[in-house]
Amino acid sequence: MSPFSGSAPRTGEWRHVQVTEESGVTTVTLARPAKLNALTFGAYADLRDLLAELSHRNRPRALVLGGEGRAFCSGGDVDEIIGATLEMDTAQLLDFNRMTGQVVRALREAPFPVVAAVHGAAAGAGAVLALAADFRVADPTARFSFLFTKVGLSGGDMGAAYLLPRVVGLGHATRILMLGEPVRAPEAERIGLISRLVDEGGTAHAAHALARRLADGPALAHAQTKALLTAELDLPLSGAVELDAATQAMLMHGEDYAEFHAAFTAKRPPQWRGR
Amino acid sequence: MSPFSGSAPRTGEWRHVQVTEESGVTTVTLARPAKLNALTFGAYADLRDLLAELSHRNRPRALVLGGEGRAFCSGGDVDEIIGATLEMDTAQLLDFNRMTGQVVRALREAPFPVVAAVHGAAAGAGAVLALAADFRVADPTARFSFLFTKVGLSGGDMGAAYLLPRVVGLGHATRILMLGEPVRAPEAERIGLISRLVDEGGTAHAAHALARRLADGPALAHAQTKALLTAELDLPLSGAVELDAATQAMLMHGEDYAEFHAAFTAKRPPQWRGR
Amino acid sequence: MSPFSGSAPRTGEWRHVQVTEESGVTTVTLARPAKLNALTFGAYADLRDLLAELSHRNRPRALVLGGEGRAFCSGGDVDEIIGATLEMDTAQLLDFNRMTGQVVRALREAPFPVVAAVHGAAAGAGAVLALAADFRVADPTARFSFLFTKVGLSGGDMGAAYLLPRVVGLGHATRILMLGEPVRAPEAERIGLISRLVDEGGTAHAAHALARRLADGPALAHAQTKALLTAELDLPLSGAVELDAATQAMLMHGEDYAEFHAAFTAKRPPQWRGR
Repeated sequence: MSPFSGSAPRTGEWRHVQVTEESGVTTVTLARPAKLNALTFGAYADLRDLLAELSHRNRPRALVLGGEGRAFCSGGDVDEIIGATLEMDTAQLLDFNRMTGQVVRALREAPFPVVAAVHGAAAGAGAVLALAADFRVADPTARFSFLFTKVGLSGGDMGAAYLLPRVVGLGHATRILMLGEPVRAPEAERIGLISRLVDEGGTAHAAHALARRLADGPALAHAQTKALLTAELDLPLSGAVELDAATQAMLMHGEDYAEFHAAFTAKRPPQWRGR
Repeated sequence: MSPFSGSAPRTGEWRHVQVTEESGVTTVTLARPAKLNALTFGAYADLRDLLAELSHRNRPRALVLGGEGRAFCSGGDVDEIIGATLEMDTAQLLDFNRMTGQVVRALREAPFPVVAAVHGAAAGAGAVLALAADFRVADPTARFSFLFTKVGLSGGDMGAAYLLPRVVGLGHATRILMLGEPVRAPEAERIGLISRLVDEGGTAHAAHALARRLADGPALAHAQTKALLTAELDLPLSGAVELDAATQAMLMHGEDYAEFHAAFTAKRPPQWRGR
Repeated sequence: MSPFSGSAPRTGEWRHVQVTEESGVTTVTLARPAKLNALTFGAYADLRDLLAELSHRNRPRALVLGGEGRAFCSGGDVDEIIGATLEMDTAQLLDFNRMTGQVVRALREAPFPVVAAVHGAAAGAGAVLALAADFRVADPTARFSFLFTKVGLSGGDMGAAYLLPRVVGLGHATRILMLGEPVRAPEAERIGLISRLVDEGGTAHAAHALARRLADGPALAHAQTKALLTAELDLPLSGAVELDAATQAMLMHGEDYAEFHAAFTAKRPPQWRGR
């Protein structure tokens, strides 16, 4: 729990996504399986608000993002999103697109690692959600489809044209975003889009095991590693080295660093506190 | 055709490169096959001026860049370029090198995707032209040689030290630019330098088919995808997400997005207008 | 030798690293084999000061960085570094971490290429030293372990969260820095972390052969290639293209470019002068 809570109430119930918590691991599940977990306006808003609330208050040590049923997430719902946006004026459209972008920024800037458990389709906004996670645990059914151009939109959606070249290189990213064709698991693993490939049906289990390990380990060190990876994509070498130095100086006064040394000296496993 | 034409006349004839146009696809061919399409001062100037003219006026929807004969392009002509530059003063040398760099910037900033059809040698400036394209369609004879150090120059030529690490990573890029050794098709495909590997002799056909597909599809969406990929290499995450939001808000008022929805609803293929 | 020497004396003896020089190739060897070349405060300070001295004075044309015995470098010494830092105050910790970061900046900004010869463990700071080199010549025993989180620290240490995503992409880098697990030679080669894989036991020989080739070739061109690769990671396309143009204009008035043309015309191998 963060001590920095103000007057804003905590959300009592998340109606558009499922949220559970267990010992520092929050699990967020997209749960519209009949629609392959297609995103609605409400789901986007819930993801935006949930990530802000998690970041400011009952901060988890790791988060798993997954989908119920046959797919991770098929992206923006054609009826509920594409149809509705056709009726919007410019300010409303900008508002909508800023909201979706805020979800990606919140995933990248959250003070905890995010593990996406990807099986089946990760399409459109679903592909970008997976891309914005720190880890993509996927099985052989995973299929990343950045299909924005196939609906007449830019392949750069929610930061995809920023993130994908930094994950797989500009050549692959251009092909994938421009043509909108699915990237299946073998190619995704080969080009570095999958962090860990597991057996079919094993993504939820493996993603939770990874999140558990992250949460039970030196969690502040993990959180800072993520923060630095995010920040240093946008820093020059000089600023990155200075940020690393300040961060390590801070963590060297932390409990886990002392615990590592004590455990090492006593030849026992460290008891991580995450701070 | 762009409505923003001023007093400057259109070029009547391109004497140093071959230029043809068909239904939105412009094909630029380096056509000095006896010299493996070595570049001359005139060819560089024509590429610079042609790309500016295409960008401002009779804007194509896609461009194919290829070479006649046994190779894509063997780079700057040893006699006509290296020999001549040895006689130049500093201002002239800077002028020449800025011109070649402008060709690369024009390729990256052109408001249409560029498909390089690469067979045989892509050497020196030829390798950088291919690198600056959005797609590199290549066959097994393709050989990318960033051989600048082998003539006593920097491997960073025409933006190569900026582009290559962003396509294949800093480790491969350092080795390739520092040593100047050829990257053959299997390695080029493995490290992400080739976008699509086709059968020997098939590059021109495959590159045109890809350009045709890009031109006949939602061409404004494709152009914006390219623009965002180019811009977001140089933007922080926050700016990239905002640029994506503004771009999608714009395209959601475009014809192709509405057409996608109408076609999807009517269960028919979309009739793209490219706007 | 640089003409720009002031009053500061040259270091007579490097006590914490071994330094030898032969015809333009400086070899720096970490030589505490009984401790797998674990780094001490003295070794960090020597690397910082040595790289500054080499850059400003008896400038080599290439540098080989290797380790004696069974490993390249096992990183900061648990007793001498971790134990000691637990007693330090904030200013001292910042001072220490800035020193280690300066070593990485010095490696990246040195006006000569650096070849790391990696066999066995390259762990912690040892992995970052290898990462900051221009070339990583490694054999099948090489094992890169960015194990900072395993001691309770951030995976971003000495610029690792800046460099690793630019070498292997953000996805692999996140996994490697967050989890701290070893990257063995086959994976390291596959993801681009190894520049050249050689037979077991062959790293020292191959690294020296590469450094010799770099030193005996157009060494100023090699040095500028490195400088541009380093600088252009932090430049936008426009600045990168302008830097390339200025650099080539400079080198086109250099001796090696003229020598290349004379040799090519006379059909003889060039006699590089490195200037």
